[in-house]
Amino acid sequence: MVKAGIVGGTGYTGVELLRLLASHPQVELRVITSRSEEGTPVAEMFPNLRGHVDLAFSVPDIQVLKQCDVVFFATPNGTAMTMVRELLEAGVKVIDLAADFRLKDVPNWEKWYGMGHASPELVAEAVYGLPEWNREAIKGARLVANPGCYPTAVVLGFLPLLEQGLISCDGLVADAKSGASGAGRKAAVGTLLCEVEGNFKAYGVAGHRHLPEIRQTLGLAAGREVGLTFVPHLVPMVRGIHATLYGRLKGEGVNLQELYESRYRNEPFVDVLPAGSHPETRSVRGINTCRIAVHQPQGGDTVVVLSAIDNLVKGAAGQAVQNMNILFSLPETAGLEGIAVLP
Amino acid sequence: MVKAGIVGGTGYTGVELLRLLASHPQVELRVITSRSEEGTPVAEMFPNLRGHVDLAFSVPDIQVLKQCDVVFFATPNGTAMTMVRELLEAGVKVIDLAADFRLKDVPNWEKWYGMGHASPELVAEAVYGLPEWNREAIKGARLVANPGCYPTAVVLGFLPLLEQGLISCDGLVADAKSGASGAGRKAAVGTLLCEVEGNFKAYGVAGHRHLPEIRQTLGLAAGREVGLTFVPHLVPMVRGIHATLYGRLKGEGVNLQELYESRYRNEPFVDVLPAGSHPETRSVRGINTCRIAVHQPQGGDTVVVLSAIDNLVKGAAGQAVQNMNILFSLPETAGLEGIAVLP
Amino acid sequence: MVKAGIVGGTGYTGVELLRLLASHPQVELRVITSRSEEGTPVAEMFPNLRGHVDLAFSVPDIQVLKQCDVVFFATPNGTAMTMVRELLEAGVKVIDLAADFRLKDVPNWEKWYGMGHASPELVAEAVYGLPEWNREAIKGARLVANPGCYPTAVVLGFLPLLEQGLISCDGLVADAKSGASGAGRKAAVGTLLCEVEGNFKAYGVAGHRHLPEIRQTLGLAAGREVGLTFVPHLVPMVRGIHATLYGRLKGEGVNLQELYESRYRNEPFVDVLPAGSHPETRSVRGINTCRIAVHQPQGGDTVVVLSAIDNLVKGAAGQAVQNMNILFSLPETAGLEGIAVLP
Amino acid sequence: MVKAGIVGGTGYTGVELLRLLASHPQVELRVITSRSEEGTPVAEMFPNLRGHVDLAFSVPDIQVLKQCDVVFFATPNGTAMTMVRELLEAGVKVIDLAADFRLKDVPNWEKWYGMGHASPELVAEAVYGLPEWNREAIKGARLVANPGCYPTAVVLGFLPLLEQGLISCDGLVADAKSGASGAGRKAAVGTLLCEVEGNFKAYGVAGHRHLPEIRQTLGLAAGREVGLTFVPHLVPMVRGIHATLYGRLKGEGVNLQELYESRYRNEPFVDVLPAGSHPETRSVRGINTCRIAVHQPQGGDTVVVLSAIDNLVKGAAGQAVQNMNILFSLPETAGLEGIAVLP
Repeated sequence: MVKAGIVGGTGYTGVELLRLLASHPQVELRVITSRSEEGTPVAEMFPNLRGHVDLAFSVPDIQVLKQCDVVFFATPNGTAMTMVRELLEAGVKVIDLAADFRLKDVPNWEKWYGMGHASPELVAEAVYGLPEWNREAIKGARLVANPGCYPTAVVLGFLPLLEQGLISCDGLVADAKSGASGAGRKAAVGTLLCEVEGNFKAYGVAGHRHLPEIRQTLGLAAGREVGLTFVPHLVPMVRGIHATLYGRLKGEGVNLQELYESRYRNEPFVDVLPAGSHPETRSVRGINTCRIAVHQPQGGDTVVVLSAIDNLVKGAAGQAVQNMNILFSLPETAGLEGIAVLP
Repeated sequence: MVKAGIVGGTGYTGVELLRLLASHPQVELRVITSRSEEGTPVAEMFPNLRGHVDLAFSVPDIQVLKQCDVVFFATPNGTAMTMVRELLEAGVKVIDLAADFRLKDVPNWEKWYGMGHASPELVAEAVYGLPEWNREAIKGARLVANPGCYPTAVVLGFLPLLEQGLISCDGLVADAKSGASGAGRKAAVGTLLCEVEGNFKAYGVAGHRHLPEIRQTLGLAAGREVGLTFVPHLVPMVRGIHATLYGRLKGEGVNLQELYESRYRNEPFVDVLPAGSHPETRSVRGINTCRIAVHQPQGGDTVVVLSAIDNLVKGAAGQAVQNMNILFSLPETAGLEGIAVLP
Repeated sequence: MVKAGIVGGTGYTGVELLRLLASHPQVELRVITSRSEEGTPVAEMFPNLRGHVDLAFSVPDIQVLKQCDVVFFATPNGTAMTMVRELLEAGVKVIDLAADFRLKDVPNWEKWYGMGHASPELVAEAVYGLPEWNREAIKGARLVANPGCYPTAVVLGFLPLLEQGLISCDGLVADAKSGASGAGRKAAVGTLLCEVEGNFKAYGVAGHRHLPEIRQTLGLAAGREVGLTFVPHLVPMVRGIHATLYGRLKGEGVNLQELYESRYRNEPFVDVLPAGSHPETRSVRGINTCRIAVHQPQGGDTVVVLSAIDNLVKGAAGQAVQNMNILFSLPETAGLEGIAVLP
Repeated sequence: MVKAGIVGGTGYTGVELLRLLASHPQVELRVITSRSEEGTPVAEMFPNLRGHVDLAFSVPDIQVLKQCDVVFFATPNGTAMTMVRELLEAGVKVIDLAADFRLKDVPNWEKWYGMGHASPELVAEAVYGLPEWNREAIKGARLVANPGCYPTAVVLGFLPLLEQGLISCDGLVADAKSGASGAGRKAAVGTLLCEVEGNFKAYGVAGHRHLPEIRQTLGLAAGREVGLTFVPHLVPMVRGIHATLYGRLKGEGVNLQELYESRYRNEPFVDVLPAGSHPETRSVRGINTCRIAVHQPQGGDTVVVLSAIDNLVKGAAGQAVQNMNILFSLPETAGLEGIAVLP
């Protein structure tokens, strides 16, 4: 059994990690921390866990965490970078669900995140935890930077085209839509039901923190810098990201459907839909799958890729568990075999 | 392995049965029928089942169904009663999720359901499938009448009080609220998103088919006829029933919390919340649990019981699987151990 | 033109008052205050008011407010009671949308609201602003206590029965359901979209502040104390209250439909629906109407009244404008003639 | 007073027309037709109209319609084209809210709409009713083709750029999102609450009927054919369209904010938001305004325009009333001065 700990478990990513780990056949959940909720039983805060998780929140204690095999950070940005070193030195594997280790360019990270980086020397070591793109590197990692939700949906959608050099690297458009849980479980007027329900809007058009993260991975996949416009939107729903991706095909005669099916044939968590399909976010709610469809409207030179994930699962906690499975040589799908509840 | 068939699987109850049976460790799903969708792969209609269910819908064929150990009817009212006899004679167990065998009083059934009953002689044999009230009888049954969604929530809420004779049998009030999936997956203006979203209303105040069903069970539990006012409401959400129940206590000094905890201590699917709690429907979404809280506001003589279920699980497909587990002496929780996805 | 001011205009009640007053033909909106938002243009916070309201929020200044004919308090409980005296002495009429002057029993108010009352001597003078019950008193008032949202829906529903002594005053049940805007526009985890959407629950079963307010008015209408159980619920929608009311008829042969139609025949804002109807909250969204239907299920002795309002209009800002119209001898429907947007 | 008739008033466009015309100061609503609902009072089907509209639906009768000054067709595609000629000949102005007269290229229309055109000779005469682009032509029209909802949002967003030749005409992207009311008030599984709520998806990527309509107008505005990829999406909400538009700037140094403000300065129904804004669909719910923001992310060569309308108002009924005001030389804003209800 893998002994697992969670630092910062009171958010939506935290409860989702708890749900997944609680029913994982090879994990023993040892500790979950929260300063503000010390002593509160987890199942009191999250009633869906009644009867499944008996832990209470405790104050983070590095000695306790060191007894784990793996520690997940479900903390705000800027926390993991102050605690990771000691855990790594104690032989604990770390998976950071926040952004601390995602960008290789530290000054750029500091610009976008508005703080100095506490462990720049670990940034180079950290492995970007997108298994479909980086599986081999993850296997040997000590520190995994779990990807952001938008980057996961966007990168999986563009990857086959960019790896093969089939689209222009300029003028890429990622029009992405997310449910409100992406904003987290914190008191804020902007995500009140009364502000979001029955409403649709874009946000962060001038620049969103996931933009440099997406650009970094797409650039590596393409072998050159990419020009990308990324516009996130807020959808009046709880879970789900839908990315609608636009690129210009360089040439003709490519069988896009075959390209995608071939690229993802052996991926347990990427499901390429039949030609002509439109993935629905509800079809991946609560599960770790990314469903993708690729279109070439009216046979023109614009390719449209539709990519749907659950932002809290494949976009956060599920992908973290997938990474843990890889780190510990467990079957990659262990604990991630549920079926989405529909309707 | 229990070989299972489903008659009429294109509705919300059908897809929920498929989801639960597909991940049930001791069930082999053999056949699912639909006249209108013959040949359509199940996973094409319900994309959440991609990779989990490979069956296609087929036309109902009694010879095929006879090879099952159990057949679930997820059909409209009035279908099962025409097919059940032949299956029972072939030794197949039948669980009817519709209302055909719920009311023992056939003329009353015919009045409420507006049709003649095709198998009145089976009505007496059928066992009402509410395990928490009727487990022993279910064990030996051939034909189980799976309870309605409202009756499940209301009866589980009132049961401890009526069994112990602690409240007046007159003037009971069940104010119940349901998500729109209770109306099924059929084209109808009344359940369009544009009619339901952002809206709340009562319906069927003059009389709802679940009223005689609730009265029948409560009457049997109380040992005498009960006077009940039942008002259902439509909530702008997909899943969930919340019943708010009101009764008049006959005497003083009863520890209601203890009564409920004691009554349901050994029930795997009834969760009595701590005193002062308010169950949320989302905490039971997708799972077979009924969560209950009991209140005595300001210490007066009115008891208020709050009872929450997922109408498609404990109120339909999940309870059917629970009944199947009982019929085949499987662990009662087999295949029903998932955790609700929250948020 | 009536010169109007608003104290505390950054909440949902505030924006609704602004919307109604901005299009009122006989009102000139002079000032709207908010300490925290000083200088912010109203239309920046509430984009629906762009082009309709040019004011910016200002710090409350009693000298400025004194130049108004009427001042609305859309403040948290406990604010108006500290400012009203000076305004009244300057000849300004005051309408308090908070609870400061609703309960005549000051010690009881202090118990439910958890603070000492700053102006107990004004409580007796204040007039409860439910025009359908109290119109004559409102006409001559200086200080109007605008009713709570739940009390408005519940009292209008029970009034005809209690005034005529047709139901027992004991064992009344008010099962009420509200959209999330009733909780106001303040940062709080409990009313995030992710906590409310797709979820239904009761709250405050042990005791809600609107309980003594409802009891007070019903008791006055009935001429004796009433026994009432009041259970509020949170509906996953923005606006609307639906109260489902239960009472026991004392005798037979009353034509309930006629009773209600007769009682409210001349009321511009109470719409008694045809027999057998079920009012929808969306049919009153954004308007000042209360729609009511009365039922006697199966001809029994339980009467069921369904009462629907918009909590922010008839339950708050609209009723305040109605009261203002009465205070200034304007047509009672002035500025309140819009049609609900449907769907 | 303008005497107005509506053909086909049982859909969402119909009820919205009724709402707007009922409170229009210079319109007398004479007749509303529906074959299927003959005799049903309008206010019975649409309870928001109780007390505002006394008409009942009647069977379409050309003699009655001829007595109107203007007839609105809120019918399915293919109906208006069979009835318009006779009305025009009788001197009645016609505004068709369906698509019959929108495309000038009749064979193309026949291809996209899958039927022969019954009045091709009227197509040339019909005036495309987008006042911000075509006001002068509308003034003298007999027959107005009211634009589609997506085309209104997309065209208003691209217009300033294309008219001035500031962006490349190739590779335009319109990523559009609509509430479910765009699908109309007809019984269909796909728009049930249980299919749409909590879900987001694209649809019609291969080709949507609004594509040729958008291309036609943009092409005329640009003076040459445009290359456009149009992807519509379904948002889990009732009303609203948000179009996110992408184009490549040809040169540098254009002040986009000034361009948009200048283009729409005198337009009563286009509101250009301050730089850096993100329009919300709820801010235009129920009103005839299009709110627009223009962005140039990171100062690159991609321009992003955000355009929000209410699909049933500026995208249908409101624009029709605006066109009627123009046809009859009424103030263009008459009857369209309401304020959006928020939240």
